[in-house]
Amino acid sequence: MVARSGIRSAALRSPAQIPVRPRPGTPSAGTLTGRIPLADPRPVAPGGFPAKAFASEVVPFSVVAFREGHDRIGVHVRLTAPDGTKTLHRLAPLGDGSDRWLADIALDAQGDWRYRFEAFADDFATWAHAASVKIAAGVDVAVMAALGRDLFARAASDARRPAAERAMLTRTAALLDSADAATALSVAVDPDLAAIFAARPLMSLSAETAKQTIVVERTRAGIGAWYEFFPRSEGATRKKDGTITSGTFRTAAQSLDRVAAMGFDVLYLPPIHPIGRTHRKGPNNTLVAGPGDPGSPWAIGAAEGGHDAVHPDLGTLADFRSFVRKARSAGVEVALDLALQASPDHPWVAAHPEWFTTLPDGTIAYAENPPKKYQDIYPLNFDDDPVGLRDEVLRVVRHWIAQGVKIFRVDNPHTKPLQFWEWLIAQVTATDPDAIFLAEAFTRPAPLRGLAAAGFQQSYTYFTWRNTKRELETFLTGLATETADYLRPNLFVNTPDILTEYLQFGGRAAYKVRAAIAATAAPVYGVYAGYELFENIARPGSEENIDNEKYEYKLRDFAAAESSGASLAPYLRHLNEIRRAHPALRQLRNLRVHWSDDDGILVYSKHLDGRFTENGEPDTILVVANVDPHSVRETTVHLDTRIWGVEPGETFEVVDLVTGVGWTWSDHNYVRLDAFDEPVHILHVRGRS
Amino acid sequence: MVARSGIRSAALRSPAQIPVRPRPGTPSAGTLTGRIPLADPRPVAPGGFPAKAFASEVVPFSVVAFREGHDRIGVHVRLTAPDGTKTLHRLAPLGDGSDRWLADIALDAQGDWRYRFEAFADDFATWAHAASVKIAAGVDVAVMAALGRDLFARAASDARRPAAERAMLTRTAALLDSADAATALSVAVDPDLAAIFAARPLMSLSAETAKQTIVVERTRAGIGAWYEFFPRSEGATRKKDGTITSGTFRTAAQSLDRVAAMGFDVLYLPPIHPIGRTHRKGPNNTLVAGPGDPGSPWAIGAAEGGHDAVHPDLGTLADFRSFVRKARSAGVEVALDLALQASPDHPWVAAHPEWFTTLPDGTIAYAENPPKKYQDIYPLNFDDDPVGLRDEVLRVVRHWIAQGVKIFRVDNPHTKPLQFWEWLIAQVTATDPDAIFLAEAFTRPAPLRGLAAAGFQQSYTYFTWRNTKRELETFLTGLATETADYLRPNLFVNTPDILTEYLQFGGRAAYKVRAAIAATAAPVYGVYAGYELFENIARPGSEENIDNEKYEYKLRDFAAAESSGASLAPYLRHLNEIRRAHPALRQLRNLRVHWSDDDGILVYSKHLDGRFTENGEPDTILVVANVDPHSVRETTVHLDTRIWGVEPGETFEVVDLVTGVGWTWSDHNYVRLDAFDEPVHILHVRGRS
Repeated sequence: MVARSGIRSAALRSPAQIPVRPRPGTPSAGTLTGRIPLADPRPVAPGGFPAKAFASEVVPFSVVAFREGHDRIGVHVRLTAPDGTKTLHRLAPLGDGSDRWLADIALDAQGDWRYRFEAFADDFATWAHAASVKIAAGVDVAVMAALGRDLFARAASDARRPAAERAMLTRTAALLDSADAATALSVAVDPDLAAIFAARPLMSLSAETAKQTIVVERTRAGIGAWYEFFPRSEGATRKKDGTITSGTFRTAAQSLDRVAAMGFDVLYLPPIHPIGRTHRKGPNNTLVAGPGDPGSPWAIGAAEGGHDAVHPDLGTLADFRSFVRKARSAGVEVALDLALQASPDHPWVAAHPEWFTTLPDGTIAYAENPPKKYQDIYPLNFDDDPVGLRDEVLRVVRHWIAQGVKIFRVDNPHTKPLQFWEWLIAQVTATDPDAIFLAEAFTRPAPLRGLAAAGFQQSYTYFTWRNTKRELETFLTGLATETADYLRPNLFVNTPDILTEYLQFGGRAAYKVRAAIAATAAPVYGVYAGYELFENIARPGSEENIDNEKYEYKLRDFAAAESSGASLAPYLRHLNEIRRAHPALRQLRNLRVHWSDDDGILVYSKHLDGRFTENGEPDTILVVANVDPHSVRETTVHLDTRIWGVEPGETFEVVDLVTGVGWTWSDHNYVRLDAFDEPVHILHVRGRS
Repeated sequence: MVARSGIRSAALRSPAQIPVRPRPGTPSAGTLTGRIPLADPRPVAPGGFPAKAFASEVVPFSVVAFREGHDRIGVHVRLTAPDGTKTLHRLAPLGDGSDRWLADIALDAQGDWRYRFEAFADDFATWAHAASVKIAAGVDVAVMAALGRDLFARAASDARRPAAERAMLTRTAALLDSADAATALSVAVDPDLAAIFAARPLMSLSAETAKQTIVVERTRAGIGAWYEFFPRSEGATRKKDGTITSGTFRTAAQSLDRVAAMGFDVLYLPPIHPIGRTHRKGPNNTLVAGPGDPGSPWAIGAAEGGHDAVHPDLGTLADFRSFVRKARSAGVEVALDLALQASPDHPWVAAHPEWFTTLPDGTIAYAENPPKKYQDIYPLNFDDDPVGLRDEVLRVVRHWIAQGVKIFRVDNPHTKPLQFWEWLIAQVTATDPDAIFLAEAFTRPAPLRGLAAAGFQQSYTYFTWRNTKRELETFLTGLATETADYLRPNLFVNTPDILTEYLQFGGRAAYKVRAAIAATAAPVYGVYAGYELFENIARPGSEENIDNEKYEYKLRDFAAAESSGASLAPYLRHLNEIRRAHPALRQLRNLRVHWSDDDGILVYSKHLDGRFTENGEPDTILVVANVDPHSVRETTVHLDTRIWGVEPGETFEVVDLVTGVGWTWSDHNYVRLDAFDEPVHILHVRGRS
């Protein structure tokens, strides 16, 4: 990123407006094109929605700008922070023939930021370039000196410049009046003069883009390690007769320290509401539940209540509030599931049949994928009483916000109208700007991206199904570039619905590889309980765990597994420590893929410039992963070291944060990764050697 | 294209409005998202400019549309022609997971067309799909029949449907009232009923895009074979003393038959204005001209006049008008050069010094690329009197339009403000909608594309520098897809400025290959005189012909070359005949690249559906070119024959339009191309064998 990073001068950060002086009579009226064409400003989201960032995110602001002929232009972006503070940031040209200019800017305050780009004729740069070339060649010495004299005199007349600067500019103008070639050349190449004009350009022609908005959300919207557990399993006990007593919010609270000790920031709970009894599913998604079977938490609603109630087995609403408070004390924020569907026993069914689809025979339509039916679930109908239903959902969300919850993991949002989500999220965030909605939309790219653009703060992605090197290169690069302005991936390594073949058959190496990539490739990732126990047996013919926790209690002894060395928890803890120690890993857009000669060795870097770190030091992490979990691989990796300011051929020190081993590296390096030992290097670049 | 072509039913072409019936209370107000999300409508141009097409162009109208759940949607586009006629066209889903829907539509009338897309819940399709699946499985027979009864009754109540259709729908509703499974199933799968609803869907929820505009320009803006000659060379004669007498419009008129006989449609003349004498360039761009040297036509302006005058050596303005008339009689339209720059002798220099840049020493600035200067040229300054200058250029353009010229090849437009061109072209086309401007912008992609978007009807491209198979595959695919909505390439094979190494060293095969690709890949292409004589000697160290015609007269004996078999003219004539005979070659967007196993064999097809041809027959051309002009190559080509409606494995007949030889082909075919004989197959697909 250094090679392409923007310029942010302290002198440019004042709220002062730099005057734009278009020449009179410029025929700009009525044209879409400005005097200096500007195109394709970014960040940008599709569909007219604002772009997104999170507080502390480093955002690339860029625009295409060019003009006719050889004269130089400058480009800057004017930012207005949520509190009205205005800053000005100079962009640097990428210089790759794209005519794109860029500045990386850290947005630190939550709220709506406004921005627009301005391009201008950079009169000093045009003169300095022509003068230095022509005077050195002995061409037009007097003319160039005279042009410089006029230019410096014009700059000196600008009352907004400091008095000392104006005096210096006046002296320089006088110096150029009948200067000899050596003197004129010295002025044209003077770095101090160039710095003055870099800070406050001498502009003539100019143009600007329309104002755009970028919404900066709270840091937790963009950075977080998530853990998912079913509270009914946490502290559940087996009685002598073999039946199981449900865990409760009180017993689950005892697991908070375990979650916090692993370094997770967010604890996501599947639905905590009363579970329907009609057509309740039994173990392994069977159609008949036994008397002790707890049912799927997603079959929401029973006599005890619906979406605003808690399951009596878990405790009371007061118990839940206490759980949320204890979690917060442990440094963990609780996220709830928002699954907009009902069991046949849901109170809505009797009170609001208009929120469901009633068939000609008077029955309510089940969820179905014709000819299959899911008789434990009634889907909602968003069209018969859309206003009534949306207001009820808003009430439910605000109810849980009142209990201390601000994060909602939304179940299957792509099966409800996108328009509804746009409305709901806008309503909620208008009063609770800290609210975060995570879209669980395992669907086609258009609706998945549409949900992100329309307001979801985070999105599940195709991550679990991207396992080969080539797949991951394309996938991660897309996340960091193509969609990063509006879609924030939450890279869950597994879910109660997803146990991929890679995990089923990849052994412990697979669990390490996937966790290491998820934790380092994106600033938000997640793990569902059991992952640390390498639970890898699938229900035959499915991509889900056998004896799926969705339909039964799971009694796990995490401590025993860890004592016996059969737990991934220490590795996860270590990953989360690395994430906390390295700000480069808490950014999304800084991922860059590097080449390796082996089709199983994935390489990417994450670099953060020292301008954006607390200690002022740059932070660079290199991840080298053997994604073939059944192999020992040796190869050469080839790095674009200029990203972290190291020229090709120079050496630098790296330390593997997994093992503590260090090496001296350059742009071409031998690696050997043993899937049966440590399949992933997470290398910290320690600077030049 | 067949596989992805849209549906255009005759029944849908009436201007009748299909009613949209949103349910009351739908919470669409205030959201950017419609009840059925629509995104990324195309055609579209960047920067807010309208998309472009030419009269008779087949334009892909497409949009991303999806909805939640399993219910079916339909998508159509409403077109309003320039005369106000409204038509409705149904789109078909691509079915590739992109959620994009598409219809190919031929736009036949010149002018501004308006369009917007509508998506709707297709209630009949939803019912028919669910009913056919569920009834066949014995599930919900009575419910599905009752739902069908209500649906048919609702359709029958629509007074806009024909009476006979309403009666049939009423009978069907009655039939479904207590129908048995077999009867209900027969209704659900009845193709005649499906056709009724395809023509006039039963819609409930709906959404629409904003209206967009596509400008349809005259056919010549999009289709044409161009030829370029210097009129002063046509009929020029060498006197006994070795000096040359200039050709004139009268002598050049005698070359019109030659140009027309080769099948060219447009004759482009380099500037025809008086040429400056101050610092006139001599042969081969030398700095000193001899007394007989005519100078570069781009050094415009002398005592005899400027941009509105003709060079006295060429004749009078009346002679020019006569030349234009004769050309028109021969079927050739004359294009003039518009080069906005002046020799030091141009009348503008004295009359309007404010249109140039005056230096502190009182002199006018030459064109330069510091420290180099071009002392025969003063560039214009568009900022000191922008209104005065732009009005003068508009006057000049209208002056030539008054002489019968409507096509302007614009010299180096990227060295003038883009804003100026947007204004000029809008002004001209407002009064002369047949005007065509071709941008000679050999510059970076952003300004090249910006000029096209801002109004230029045609663009020179990087074609001359795209010579390898991989380069051409990427380049031609980009032209046919990425930029086709606003940028029309004019594939000139050579110019007075460009004699590429490929032509310098590729021999006669190179000339054939480049002409065949240019003539078949795009509907507009061009040839500069001398190409047919294989003129391939460059001035050392340059990419231009030696003894460049820009600086001297060229006396060529085209007839002698042709008699002796040393001319490419017969080949060019043949190419132009093929273009006239095959409408598929007169479209840009229908180019599809196919695979070949050899890195020198380029394969592409151009297919046009029978809906869009005069005789109703589909037209398919396959171009197979050996782009290595020094080799004989044999390989296998692999074709996606579904594009022209042939299933993989089926055979079909092809005839090489170059040689007349025919073969039976399938999707995998052996080819042998001898660069020293015929390096290019231009195959006409004659249908299945």
